[in-house]
Amino acid sequence: MLGVNQYGKAETHLVRVERDGEEHSLRDLLVSVALSGAFEDVHVRGDNSAVLATDTQKNTVYAFAREFGVGSCEEFALRLARHFVDAGGAVSQARVEVVEVAWSRLGPHAFAQTSREQRVACVIAAAGGEAWFVSGLSDLVVLKTTDSEFHGFPRDRYTTLAETSDRVLATAVSARWRHDGSASFSEARAALLDTFAAHHSLSLQQTLYAMGSAVLEACPAVFEIRLSLPNQHHFVVDLSPFGLTNDNEVFHADDRPYGLIEGAVVREGAPDPGPVWDPYPLVTNLHRHR
Amino acid sequence: MLGVNQYGKAETHLVRVERDGEEHSLRDLLVSVALSGAFEDVHVRGDNSAVLATDTQKNTVYAFAREFGVGSCEEFALRLARHFVDAGGAVSQARVEVVEVAWSRLGPHAFAQTSREQRVACVIAAAGGEAWFVSGLSDLVVLKTTDSEFHGFPRDRYTTLAETSDRVLATAVSARWRHDGSASFSEARAALLDTFAAHHSLSLQQTLYAMGSAVLEACPAVFEIRLSLPNQHHFVVDLSPFGLTNDNEVFHADDRPYGLIEGAVVREGAPDPGPVWDPYPLVTNLHRHR
Amino acid sequence: MLGVNQYGKAETHLVRVERDGEEHSLRDLLVSVALSGAFEDVHVRGDNSAVLATDTQKNTVYAFAREFGVGSCEEFALRLARHFVDAGGAVSQARVEVVEVAWSRLGPHAFAQTSREQRVACVIAAAGGEAWFVSGLSDLVVLKTTDSEFHGFPRDRYTTLAETSDRVLATAVSARWRHDGSASFSEARAALLDTFAAHHSLSLQQTLYAMGSAVLEACPAVFEIRLSLPNQHHFVVDLSPFGLTNDNEVFHADDRPYGLIEGAVVREGAPDPGPVWDPYPLVTNLHRHR
Amino acid sequence: MLGVNQYGKAETHLVRVERDGEEHSLRDLLVSVALSGAFEDVHVRGDNSAVLATDTQKNTVYAFAREFGVGSCEEFALRLARHFVDAGGAVSQARVEVVEVAWSRLGPHAFAQTSREQRVACVIAAAGGEAWFVSGLSDLVVLKTTDSEFHGFPRDRYTTLAETSDRVLATAVSARWRHDGSASFSEARAALLDTFAAHHSLSLQQTLYAMGSAVLEACPAVFEIRLSLPNQHHFVVDLSPFGLTNDNEVFHADDRPYGLIEGAVVREGAPDPGPVWDPYPLVTNLHRHR
Repeated sequence: MLGVNQYGKAETHLVRVERDGEEHSLRDLLVSVALSGAFEDVHVRGDNSAVLATDTQKNTVYAFAREFGVGSCEEFALRLARHFVDAGGAVSQARVEVVEVAWSRLGPHAFAQTSREQRVACVIAAAGGEAWFVSGLSDLVVLKTTDSEFHGFPRDRYTTLAETSDRVLATAVSARWRHDGSASFSEARAALLDTFAAHHSLSLQQTLYAMGSAVLEACPAVFEIRLSLPNQHHFVVDLSPFGLTNDNEVFHADDRPYGLIEGAVVREGAPDPGPVWDPYPLVTNLHRHR
Repeated sequence: MLGVNQYGKAETHLVRVERDGEEHSLRDLLVSVALSGAFEDVHVRGDNSAVLATDTQKNTVYAFAREFGVGSCEEFALRLARHFVDAGGAVSQARVEVVEVAWSRLGPHAFAQTSREQRVACVIAAAGGEAWFVSGLSDLVVLKTTDSEFHGFPRDRYTTLAETSDRVLATAVSARWRHDGSASFSEARAALLDTFAAHHSLSLQQTLYAMGSAVLEACPAVFEIRLSLPNQHHFVVDLSPFGLTNDNEVFHADDRPYGLIEGAVVREGAPDPGPVWDPYPLVTNLHRHR
Repeated sequence: MLGVNQYGKAETHLVRVERDGEEHSLRDLLVSVALSGAFEDVHVRGDNSAVLATDTQKNTVYAFAREFGVGSCEEFALRLARHFVDAGGAVSQARVEVVEVAWSRLGPHAFAQTSREQRVACVIAAAGGEAWFVSGLSDLVVLKTTDSEFHGFPRDRYTTLAETSDRVLATAVSARWRHDGSASFSEARAALLDTFAAHHSLSLQQTLYAMGSAVLEACPAVFEIRLSLPNQHHFVVDLSPFGLTNDNEVFHADDRPYGLIEGAVVREGAPDPGPVWDPYPLVTNLHRHR
Repeated sequence: MLGVNQYGKAETHLVRVERDGEEHSLRDLLVSVALSGAFEDVHVRGDNSAVLATDTQKNTVYAFAREFGVGSCEEFALRLARHFVDAGGAVSQARVEVVEVAWSRLGPHAFAQTSREQRVACVIAAAGGEAWFVSGLSDLVVLKTTDSEFHGFPRDRYTTLAETSDRVLATAVSARWRHDGSASFSEARAALLDTFAAHHSLSLQQTLYAMGSAVLEACPAVFEIRLSLPNQHHFVVDLSPFGLTNDNEVFHADDRPYGLIEGAVVREGAPDPGPVWDPYPLVTNLHRHR
């Protein structure tokens, strides 16, 4: 029997220039569409009569950027998602994800892509008219040089880690928050950064919970936030063989392995998440040999 | 409120050499652990008394490789997962994923890592003794030069794609199948490859369904298989400006965007999946700007 | 016969924290060492008596960061390079490359790695006391929405490209400039950015030459600059099938292939480059299948 | 003054299918072109009258694949390179690099890209008719579990590395050999692999020299070979805290830093290398923060 399924065009790389007046503006988006619905026929019999081609989806992304402009990432994703479910036909649900990188202005027509951070918006629209909103970010790399401890953990036969009351804490924040469509991205981002900077950490889990709680507090429109925080280990280098002390001044930043700390903070009374946490992709290849 | 959460050491890169006799053998594994359970205290209060350090998890991986050897990836993952839940304490569920790359023999002590394919085994163990098995593979890149059509799809205002009765079909297979612990990896892999090669494709969805069905047919121990198949577009280059024909002989292999076709095939009467499809990681960054 | 050769420890990832006072500071460096000299014996006979272990080189990087601090990347590289050649022994030349990413301050002890740009410093020291300086940057991604033309190029049998008097121009700047050790990085970088932004481009080659010339003009200490500029094509999407115009507003940003435009601008009367452009690595794998 | 410069289309991804008869065949190439010559006018004045567009170069790659087929990578590169210099005009030298990945056959029309190795051919043609040939490979990952020692190296203040008479040796071979155009790729590759497997190593430098010498011995047409061998460290995990021995059985495969051992072996009386080792790209970004 056919199980869960979805399909669409992924990573359409759209650059949209606004050329009104002397000063141009620039948006740089990666747009991915996934449709689901009554698609038994194409799977079982190869009947494509219900399959809106992924090439058409790509064309729609470009055409909508011209017809309607981009607006906020959430608006653009919503317009596209509604289009695919409102067309009638087999599609009962459309998921549109937009990933944006920011460009800073060098001049009226020139820009530099100085940031490595990636902003994410995802909208899921259902045939009945309902819609769900997820916003977030990836690759927000942060580090604190102190105010981080880790001790009191259990010691079994395989435990060698020393307790510490002062360590470097570094991570690359991946966050997604579901909301009613009105949540401010910049307020959520500021809450994450301010809390990371100000929090005295007894564990990365505690920092994660504090960061998530701060977003819920700052953004009433947010129902739930999920965070994935790799613990990017910074090891104090042993310089004693060279007659040198090292009081948390010289570190080796290691690549692998890394701790992976993940968790959600949910507002009490939050509505049902609907399909927002349904897996996309169905198969995740997070870990791979290089 | 704290929502779903998990933590562990990811991507411990273990190489295990067996040195019995003149001919050595070699295993090359990436091991990732994720534990979940009663971890409210560490999130809310920073109390680490229940938190088995991820460093300890890493040590355990190395120690078990020495004490017990590796065996099959599934055996190794199961032994580790059971260890973490059987220790008592807060852990109610342990997820261990092993990703292996194969090495081919050059001599009694020398090897070449000729393959780019990655083999995956994932075992989830619960405190009560239950265990779930998922096996799979990633980066299995396949292509067929004909026997692939795509036509009969609907045409709306944004459709420009021409119908075709002969195209190149290429994909990088990611597959995961849940089973009772006894499924043969090589039989599942052979079913995927044989079906891809032999199937006359009317759409990638149909090929996906045929590949998944073939695995269920070949492997009675498999309950369900999930496939994620990027449609790696090969475009026929228009050589007419140069006075040349191009009857599906010269292609431009494009990078982005790509179709992403995903689906599951489930055996009738399959048991409940339990936690095997629960999201890991919680936040997926599949699409990102480069 | 043994030909050109060099060896060393690559990509030692050093993070150096200054903890003087309430406000900490942070440096994040990737340090790579390459030594060359009289190393016939190790190659031909496996005699390691002249081979300073690459592990020792790594230790030296960490120890020097503690003993002397980092200072400018050029100072740090020079101190290390001199150390390796002054030790006597077989080393006649030491090359030390430092790649730095910047962190911006969130608080007295907290930082965000907001930039994707990579700053490079490379110092080569010879046994006789001479030293050469190269500075530069990678991954400086820039784009202009207009002020770029491309026409007047020859047309042969295989030419289909239309002439244009208005296109998007985008590139990721890689630059290296050799200098006397006193050149200001920020002035060189500003000259690159300002010229890119202000230049009316008739070809990327012309823009390259203007950018390089501007650095020579702004920085008297610079003898020569080499630039490698991938032409990251932004194609105007044909929206006419959908009844829409597209006057340079909606673009597809393509990944591959790309133009690769490279060139040097040299100050008249510049001294001999010495070893600064000698190949490192000896074998370059710029282009590879993904 | 304008210094060294070159330009061209990089990474044209060509897939060529031969459809003669029932059994198809498949070639998968990444083709990069770099032209140099009298290009002062475009750099200094933006005059494009000598600039064969990189788009035209791409078209030529596809058209030649149709008109002449691919043949050996060296033949294909030579035909293209000669075309660009024989056209007259400003081009005095053309460099064409072809990187191929192999596909293995699944059926008459189906293939799997099982190997991760990349085969390289580079031909440089000069306007006068001369041509130079370089062949090689990248990403050939090899490992030996014993027959590798490292001791007798000097110990200074910063040396902590223990001597060893038995270690794991692992590397990813990058090799380029210049030859007269008639060298057999498979014989060169076999000489590299056989020597790596059979050689008792006292240092990676010694292994490098032995591998290079073996290629010169096996292939009379080869003048010189350059090898770049990262020493991918495999560290013996200390299991003594767990009451376990570890006699080279359990290893941590580390990512960074790594040793980078590079060298050339040159045949006595080899002709002048001409332009074959000229830098491409002009700026190498080998090391970068991730």
